Amino acid sequence: MNIPEHEHRHHPTVQTHLQQVQDLLQKQALVESMTQRHEAGHDERHELLGKMLHKRHLAELRELLDELHSADIAYILESLPIEQRLMLWEMVKADRDGDILIEVSDSVRESLIASMNREELRAATEQLDTDEIADLAPDLPQNVMRDVFKSLSIEEREQLREAMSYSEDSVGALMDFNMVHVREDVTLEVVSRYLRRFDELPDHTDQVFVVDREDCFKGVLPINMIVVNEPEIEVGKLMLTDTIQLHPDDKAEQAAHSFERYDLVSAPVVAEDGKLVGRVTVNVVLDFIRAESETDLLKLAGLREEEDIFASVWKSAQNRWTWLALNLATAFFASRVIGSFEDTIAKFVALATLMPIVAGIAGNSANQTTTIIIRSLALGQITHDNARRLMMKELTISGLNGLVWGGIAGLFAYFLYHNVALGLVMTSAMLLNLIVGALVGLFIPLAMHKLGRDPAIGASVMITAITDSGGFFIFLGLAAIFLIH
Amino acid sequence: MNIPEHEHRHHPTVQTHLQQVQDLLQKQALVESMTQRHEAGHDERHELLGKMLHKRHLAELRELLDELHSADIAYILESLPIEQRLMLWEMVKADRDGDILIEVSDSVRESLIASMNREELRAATEQLDTDEIADLAPDLPQNVMRDVFKSLSIEEREQLREAMSYSEDSVGALMDFNMVHVREDVTLEVVSRYLRRFDELPDHTDQVFVVDREDCFKGVLPINMIVVNEPEIEVGKLMLTDTIQLHPDDKAEQAAHSFERYDLVSAPVVAEDGKLVGRVTVNVVLDFIRAESETDLLKLAGLREEEDIFASVWKSAQNRWTWLALNLATAFFASRVIGSFEDTIAKFVALATLMPIVAGIAGNSANQTTTIIIRSLALGQITHDNARRLMMKELTISGLNGLVWGGIAGLFAYFLYHNVALGLVMTSAMLLNLIVGALVGLFIPLAMHKLGRDPAIGASVMITAITDSGGFFIFLGLAAIFLIH
Repeated sequence: MNIPEHEHRHHPTVQTHLQQVQDLLQKQALVESMTQRHEAGHDERHELLGKMLHKRHLAELRELLDELHSADIAYILESLPIEQRLMLWEMVKADRDGDILIEVSDSVRESLIASMNREELRAATEQLDTDEIADLAPDLPQNVMRDVFKSLSIEEREQLREAMSYSEDSVGALMDFNMVHVREDVTLEVVSRYLRRFDELPDHTDQVFVVDREDCFKGVLPINMIVVNEPEIEVGKLMLTDTIQLHPDDKAEQAAHSFERYDLVSAPVVAEDGKLVGRVTVNVVLDFIRAESETDLLKLAGLREEEDIFASVWKSAQNRWTWLALNLATAFFASRVIGSFEDTIAKFVALATLMPIVAGIAGNSANQTTTIIIRSLALGQITHDNARRLMMKELTISGLNGLVWGGIAGLFAYFLYHNVALGLVMTSAMLLNLIVGALVGLFIPLAMHKLGRDPAIGASVMITAITDSGGFFIFLGLAAIFLIH
Repeated sequence: MNIPEHEHRHHPTVQTHLQQVQDLLQKQALVESMTQRHEAGHDERHELLGKMLHKRHLAELRELLDELHSADIAYILESLPIEQRLMLWEMVKADRDGDILIEVSDSVRESLIASMNREELRAATEQLDTDEIADLAPDLPQNVMRDVFKSLSIEEREQLREAMSYSEDSVGALMDFNMVHVREDVTLEVVSRYLRRFDELPDHTDQVFVVDREDCFKGVLPINMIVVNEPEIEVGKLMLTDTIQLHPDDKAEQAAHSFERYDLVSAPVVAEDGKLVGRVTVNVVLDFIRAESETDLLKLAGLREEEDIFASVWKSAQNRWTWLALNLATAFFASRVIGSFEDTIAKFVALATLMPIVAGIAGNSANQTTTIIIRSLALGQITHDNARRLMMKELTISGLNGLVWGGIAGLFAYFLYHNVALGLVMTSAMLLNLIVGALVGLFIPLAMHKLGRDPAIGASVMITAITDSGGFFIFLGLAAIFLIH
């Protein structure tokens, strides 16, 4: 056997590369500080040694960078604190700048672009396809965009305008223009000869698109069919016509579902008038799904956007403030609800110790309901027919939860304060607030969905606001009626 | 132009199909109830009419089902209440049962399998590849698995054993065995002739794998290279050798990152001894990423597993109970913390109205910190070098938040109760509790990650427990010291 047994077992991962880069950057920083310290004492020998070491580290670093995939360099840049990041960015060969800018996250991209001048930015975009330039466009200064536009051919300008015209969450935004198209009246032989004129087919070319003279989409011909069929067959005889077609204005999320369901590698994008305008490939869909799922998680924690972990404190704080401000406002409101029962609490302090239980459990239960509803909405599973059924089910569950957990909480209250009425008030308040929770957990996402808004983002803060204030009101209200004489 | 302008614009979506199926099922149910009502009166003409209608609806439904992709039928089954679901499942042609079982979600699969007998299940698995049978295996009764095993060839048994031996979150679990392999000393011409012997290449064959006589992996040859190069070139000259190789025991999450970074369509899986054992394709990775992201969202709401929206109340309640029980326990603890300050509250009831604010805001802020940390951990961005930096940053942000939001809350308290000391206690308690929140928000996910546990699942309940109890303790404690004389 030629390959040593464990060679590819220990294929270095990108984490290893990150560590290597960090070590080299640190050694270099050390050398620099050494050189500076000795400059004061004019020790020339030390200075020279420092410079030599410095050079060696730089050379090592450059070599490592040359070997790495652009996506890996992007990952390393994201994982480095800002000074080290910019130091490394300086060392990346200019002809890879464009690819890497496409790969890094939005917030890191901002920090990289801020460090580049007009000429560097123009050079970076020169290496990119028009659909990639469109992705970068919102982050580029206006004068750079003007330069870029001037340098493009008429066809490319048209593509760039087209790519920039679609909203961020549409199929048009995922689309690229690297399609291979053929006519239906030619043979596989001719297609093969045509393909051989390419040095390399565009990435993710699993099929070529069949169009007519007017560029109208007729069907697709999978590359694998070209390979397994005899060369004299005509394209029209083999091409598939009932495959998925996307439309530039479709929601990107819908296209993602199509890729998942039908296991696609690429899909044609066809305009209203039947013309083939572009294609979407699975790698873009993969990135889209990952980005969506991360956004969902960030939104749930009330983070406005993905955060560069090395962003300044000030910038990070801003990312988090809208949410905290909103929560503070609802907390103030809940506090005033309690405030209106101050007399009741003064007469029976035990109420103050028990009220957070009523609010908390209902909040958790309501969030479970909302999560189920949001997921079903995202999958399009909630139809007119089954919405009622779902509501009944959620209300029944929260009723059951109210009896079970309300019962336990009631016993807890009774054993602590030896007061039967208190136990009963506790249980009833839990039951009622859990039902309130189920109702808001159901209606808030359904209403937001109807209004065409994203139910994931605001639902949880509203739900907590209602189950908190509602819980305090129900519990203290019942206590005021039944406990205080 | 041949295609009418709007034809593909209105390509029916799977939601439309769902609506159609529901309508047909409802019509049928109507007819059935009609027939039953008339049976009592022996009105034969009505009965006959009922039967005819019944037949027509069934025929329409069957026709619709035949046209639909297995993934779409799976989706419709998931979106139907249990009785309608089983009715439809009965009507699906037996030879598609296997494919559909693979596509449906775990909980729905359970309900379908429960309705099938031994013979039907055996027949359904017969249509599947060994890697798919392995996916189904945990849900199949033992006697069915024994039947299935007996019906397989020796090679297939070996594959099934192999596929079932890997843990659910490893590359081995994502792998299939549908590889095309060639030797390096043959020409493209020979490869083409070999490929033409297939009626159809396996799905997602974007490359063929090059192996030696011992099945040791040597490299890959992209199909596109076969297409664009001259037929007389040898495979060895063209094949790529430095591409990504996966290992069956690697984490599936790692493989997913490779697919995202390097835009792969398929990747070889190579064993410790260098032998090619299988491949992973991008469609499986896409499903894996989607499933992971859904699990994350469900976990955050404390749902043990994905829920069939039409599962019984009892089953759904069980899915939610662990979480609610845990939250109730921490709420009881927080309640006892407040209880130990009953005297303080009795002397100054305003404290009861303000204490939820201190607890709530710190909880939200801590969850933001944890979300950032969990994300960075998932991306592998937290190294020894930058962990300290991150901690300093999060602590600074929470200090800043403490001053800003604590200041506002202090003013709120002062204006309500005209008590400067109360305002100061409020501000200090907010500041301290936000810092406590940042500390637990940092350390809990980091500690769980070190212990090799999933930080997403338990982090939020622990954090809320600490920021609640901690908030009450700090606020009431400071009040007891500085406000009550």
